Amino acid sequence: MRPSGRQPDEIREVRLTRNFTKHAEGSVLVEFGDTRVICTASVEERVPGFLRGQGRGWVTAEYGMLPRATDTRGQREAARGKQGGRTVEIQRLIGRSLRAGMDMEALGERTVTIDCDVIQADGGTRTASITGGFVALADAMACEVAAGRLPASPIRHGIASVSVGIYQGTPVVDLDYAEDSNAETDMNVVMNDAGDFIEVQGTAEGHPFRRDEMDAMLDLAQGGIARLVAAQREALSQ
Amino acid sequence: MRPSGRQPDEIREVRLTRNFTKHAEGSVLVEFGDTRVICTASVEERVPGFLRGQGRGWVTAEYGMLPRATDTRGQREAARGKQGGRTVEIQRLIGRSLRAGMDMEALGERTVTIDCDVIQADGGTRTASITGGFVALADAMACEVAAGRLPASPIRHGIASVSVGIYQGTPVVDLDYAEDSNAETDMNVVMNDAGDFIEVQGTAEGHPFRRDEMDAMLDLAQGGIARLVAAQREALSQ
Amino acid sequence: MRPSGRQPDEIREVRLTRNFTKHAEGSVLVEFGDTRVICTASVEERVPGFLRGQGRGWVTAEYGMLPRATDTRGQREAARGKQGGRTVEIQRLIGRSLRAGMDMEALGERTVTIDCDVIQADGGTRTASITGGFVALADAMACEVAAGRLPASPIRHGIASVSVGIYQGTPVVDLDYAEDSNAETDMNVVMNDAGDFIEVQGTAEGHPFRRDEMDAMLDLAQGGIARLVAAQREALSQ
Amino acid sequence: MRPSGRQPDEIREVRLTRNFTKHAEGSVLVEFGDTRVICTASVEERVPGFLRGQGRGWVTAEYGMLPRATDTRGQREAARGKQGGRTVEIQRLIGRSLRAGMDMEALGERTVTIDCDVIQADGGTRTASITGGFVALADAMACEVAAGRLPASPIRHGIASVSVGIYQGTPVVDLDYAEDSNAETDMNVVMNDAGDFIEVQGTAEGHPFRRDEMDAMLDLAQGGIARLVAAQREALSQ
Amino acid sequence: MRPSGRQPDEIREVRLTRNFTKHAEGSVLVEFGDTRVICTASVEERVPGFLRGQGRGWVTAEYGMLPRATDTRGQREAARGKQGGRTVEIQRLIGRSLRAGMDMEALGERTVTIDCDVIQADGGTRTASITGGFVALADAMACEVAAGRLPASPIRHGIASVSVGIYQGTPVVDLDYAEDSNAETDMNVVMNDAGDFIEVQGTAEGHPFRRDEMDAMLDLAQGGIARLVAAQREALSQ
Amino acid sequence: MRPSGRQPDEIREVRLTRNFTKHAEGSVLVEFGDTRVICTASVEERVPGFLRGQGRGWVTAEYGMLPRATDTRGQREAARGKQGGRTVEIQRLIGRSLRAGMDMEALGERTVTIDCDVIQADGGTRTASITGGFVALADAMACEVAAGRLPASPIRHGIASVSVGIYQGTPVVDLDYAEDSNAETDMNVVMNDAGDFIEVQGTAEGHPFRRDEMDAMLDLAQGGIARLVAAQREALSQ
Repeated sequence: MRPSGRQPDEIREVRLTRNFTKHAEGSVLVEFGDTRVICTASVEERVPGFLRGQGRGWVTAEYGMLPRATDTRGQREAARGKQGGRTVEIQRLIGRSLRAGMDMEALGERTVTIDCDVIQADGGTRTASITGGFVALADAMACEVAAGRLPASPIRHGIASVSVGIYQGTPVVDLDYAEDSNAETDMNVVMNDAGDFIEVQGTAEGHPFRRDEMDAMLDLAQGGIARLVAAQREALSQ
Repeated sequence: MRPSGRQPDEIREVRLTRNFTKHAEGSVLVEFGDTRVICTASVEERVPGFLRGQGRGWVTAEYGMLPRATDTRGQREAARGKQGGRTVEIQRLIGRSLRAGMDMEALGERTVTIDCDVIQADGGTRTASITGGFVALADAMACEVAAGRLPASPIRHGIASVSVGIYQGTPVVDLDYAEDSNAETDMNVVMNDAGDFIEVQGTAEGHPFRRDEMDAMLDLAQGGIARLVAAQREALSQ
Repeated sequence: MRPSGRQPDEIREVRLTRNFTKHAEGSVLVEFGDTRVICTASVEERVPGFLRGQGRGWVTAEYGMLPRATDTRGQREAARGKQGGRTVEIQRLIGRSLRAGMDMEALGERTVTIDCDVIQADGGTRTASITGGFVALADAMACEVAAGRLPASPIRHGIASVSVGIYQGTPVVDLDYAEDSNAETDMNVVMNDAGDFIEVQGTAEGHPFRRDEMDAMLDLAQGGIARLVAAQREALSQ
Repeated sequence: MRPSGRQPDEIREVRLTRNFTKHAEGSVLVEFGDTRVICTASVEERVPGFLRGQGRGWVTAEYGMLPRATDTRGQREAARGKQGGRTVEIQRLIGRSLRAGMDMEALGERTVTIDCDVIQADGGTRTASITGGFVALADAMACEVAAGRLPASPIRHGIASVSVGIYQGTPVVDLDYAEDSNAETDMNVVMNDAGDFIEVQGTAEGHPFRRDEMDAMLDLAQGGIARLVAAQREALSQ
Repeated sequence: MRPSGRQPDEIREVRLTRNFTKHAEGSVLVEFGDTRVICTASVEERVPGFLRGQGRGWVTAEYGMLPRATDTRGQREAARGKQGGRTVEIQRLIGRSLRAGMDMEALGERTVTIDCDVIQADGGTRTASITGGFVALADAMACEVAAGRLPASPIRHGIASVSVGIYQGTPVVDLDYAEDSNAETDMNVVMNDAGDFIEVQGTAEGHPFRRDEMDAMLDLAQGGIARLVAAQREALSQ
Repeated sequence: MRPSGRQPDEIREVRLTRNFTKHAEGSVLVEFGDTRVICTASVEERVPGFLRGQGRGWVTAEYGMLPRATDTRGQREAARGKQGGRTVEIQRLIGRSLRAGMDMEALGERTVTIDCDVIQADGGTRTASITGGFVALADAMACEVAAGRLPASPIRHGIASVSVGIYQGTPVVDLDYAEDSNAETDMNVVMNDAGDFIEVQGTAEGHPFRRDEMDAMLDLAQGGIARLVAAQREALSQ
């Protein structure tokens, strides 16, 4: 039995609130149950040095957690003077994932920065960030098209992400904090809306996992991501 | 005429949403018009080194702005590796202001950290942070009393803050961004609920101000703060 | 009775020693009683990025304290790897104050950096820095005129600063360390030589202050600054 | 055809030179073809703060690359003042992987630090680091047993790692730099000597991968790791 | 001919002003011609971690230059966030030199920090710092004896330092900036008052130096230091 | 009697292994007995800002120690976020020493970076770095000539370095760790292959040294360096 009473293949309620703040080209509040992340997409007419003059764009991400997004207050990274290893890992993952859905030539020499700021954490902040970040990215691209700065959206594929794991011997999808902190194995999966894999990051915290467990987790991830892709499409169609 | 159509002595609509997030002892979303700040109060059973063993508590504040809280994206301070001078100034002001309403002996050897994170900026983020931060602090103290960790709230006075300035020759209260960026003089005033001054920080951006202008601004501040104190009381009574 | 035996409206002896060191365009040792600060003004033919190509100049300030300027040795900020919050606040105040007396178009694309280094501290280091920094700035501008790099000094107003506060219930001017460390309320006031306010920064350390106390403090500040402006004029006339 | 002429399921020549330097409890030069990494294991009689007093030990890893380990010189991270995101990711992976083979209660309150320093890079530095790091760890544990500080080795499972990917449409194992820099998909797999998975980190650089491609890559990884485990056993038996 | 008209073996006028600032246990303004350095000695009742519990003391030094101590303004190290390589080298040299004259057992578990802050630079700031720093150290030790915290001064030997070099083919002593910036070879020599060497740091900027040139420079250094030791004794006897 | 059984004027066995790694223009493993340092020379077609447009080149050095190169593990400087004072001193010494043998006009607008990374330390790491770094520099210059980027090598003199010191009252050459950690006086000497001095850095750790001791140490250094120069020539002739 999962602490939340959910079925093993049941994801939490997903809410995607577009235009959550007014300044950004794309701004989305994403909620996976009690996990809440503000995702904004900012477009700038410049690219990092290593891409200059190549006619191609870039998508990058930054991730942060408000100090009291969690049960006990964490140190503010700006005050500490550096981003922790976990933050660095997560923002690199978000950036790679969202780049995989884009046509960088079609984007042209622009950088889109996806800022994912967790205001309340209850497990799955990185998968929520990718899923909500994609909607912010889509809105920002639509904004560029509407403003006549791009002829068409450079997005080629939707991107969504969910966690899977083994909780008390059973494979489950979309772990909340109560499950995540006790999971024996934890895997984050990123897929596109064609059903192909973008990223698979599995870690055996408690005990190493067998090949058949991996197969079961991948099946659950495919099911969960299909529902997230549907939620993204519904949100973007409104 | 003010850009927003407000009267010179009219503050923006104020909203104070308590229990905005679930983990913190106090958590408030404060809105001064389009300016929105998440204020959380976190209580920890320890004090900084310089206070250890004296039986007294401490209240401190940290301030941050999400990178895209503003019209153009600002660099994330955690990524840059240090907090800017403006951030440091603001968080020191918030901390000093809120300490002025507390009885530190009654707090005992505890630290309350007020985190003020701006999710949308439209002028007055520091005054909104102080005003909302006080409500979060009050909730956190009530939480400690309810949990039996404190016999009574160590709060002695309510604290609120508003900006005043001279916009196109006229003294006005609670400047929004359109006014603030064009104001000739800008002053942040912090007062307690007894009508006394805690902090006065006036800066002549455009032209130095005369003594009579200062008097007019202080009058406006007193009126604005009276309304904010009323809003705090109403929010806390619900 | 004040610890120094001064009258409430009596400032300390002020000494302004010009040409204190030989390399800078302006170099002044300012002394407010036992508080001693070396102020140098350095002119460079460039402006910060945000001003480039606009034909306007910039004045900025940096502040430091020798580690043993105070009674107990403080950590060297260069060794610690960052400037503290107090330093950042003070140097921003000095810069804003001195910019208020300048015509930036007349300065042209030049940056003047005012370095204020406290070699002995006894209260009022920021007000002494502003008062002495102005004399260094005036000397540097005269040096540019003498060298033919500027047709006339871009200084429009003299700038001086003094502290006021409430010590044992009595408003007093120009607090020394013995007073400052026990003051209930402390306010730094910056004015120009036309008698208008540039900055007012009041903080209630001990008890919040009433409007009539504020009025008394502003009166004392006006008197004290008038005497500092006279001292600046005398020093510059020699 | 692979650039090196290897078969798709053929790993590079592996060399594990024990006692490569004289000071460390375990010191191994690991070579995967032209990739060469010095792995040392250092034992200290203390644990990080979060483990103190629990009777359990810790294994952590640090990773670095000599500036000219690569074709063009990279900036020295010590000179730059921080470790890059890639470094942080890799050293966290190495640490998690090696912890998975250890019984932390049996280790007692000791920390083993695995330093992996790449002196020549040709693809697969992280998989070589894990594979060589395990041998250094095993030697360090044997050293503790020999010195009477531990009754028996706390190692429960061997750990090894290999990369797999899709190069020009074909799944291949143990990619060298020529392949890695052109691979469409890249996956690092860590397994224990019982054939279970510890970590799976797959990234679609070029094109997202299908489930059948993932299966093929996992098959290759299992074969490659079996050969690495055999090489570790042979090295440790000498 | 030297730019200053001095003889090859002639040092600049030396002034040692004791009690230059009021807070430190020892405070000296040292002047070697136009080079002016404030040296303070601060005594604290604690030692660095590596010495704790051994009954021995420590002497350390920190060095800084005011940004406009030189002809063109240098960046403030506190603002830049780190001390430069030259600063680190110099402060390590000062600390080692002054430790060589002390009996650390007699000092007991105390740390003396010598702060050397250059307010005007004209060559030889490190040699002036050592020479002036010794007088500040002697005053601080006398202060501890006078206060009854030490039974007798732990100083065993006076320490002084001078530079020598080869300027336009001629060995000269105590180079000023005009000479130093054109010297072919530059050597800083530290000796004690018994005429023995503490440090010799020679660098061939322009051309490597022969053994006979080295001998000539060492002779000049011995002569110059003898005069500095005399100046220290005279200053301390007043 | 020296711990190693060597004669006072006997240096350790020296090995210079060229082409130790494959990517750098010059790559040498230098061994002074058990001290082992990897020295690489990297050539880049750019110069630091202060040299731009002058037609001259630059040689600089960076130094590091693997954390477990020593008997107890040292903190990794990249993890700590800054290079220590000792590292800064050493890399500045290596850079200055190697520049002394070069004709910078002949090098043209190129920077050669010598990276010296100690993989095993047993005393004399800086002298080994200079001696091995020179061979790497020579190989890199030969590589540039062979590639047609330079008409001839810009090296004018060979550079080598050895330590001398006073161990148990006796002057000795090339101290190993057992001697170095107990030496009363320690001096690093750098000379060119014409027998002239480039750097002399002597420090009296235990007791100040007399002039005659200095003479004896310089004699030993000259003898030791002559043997190192011969070893360099032999290595480069193969």
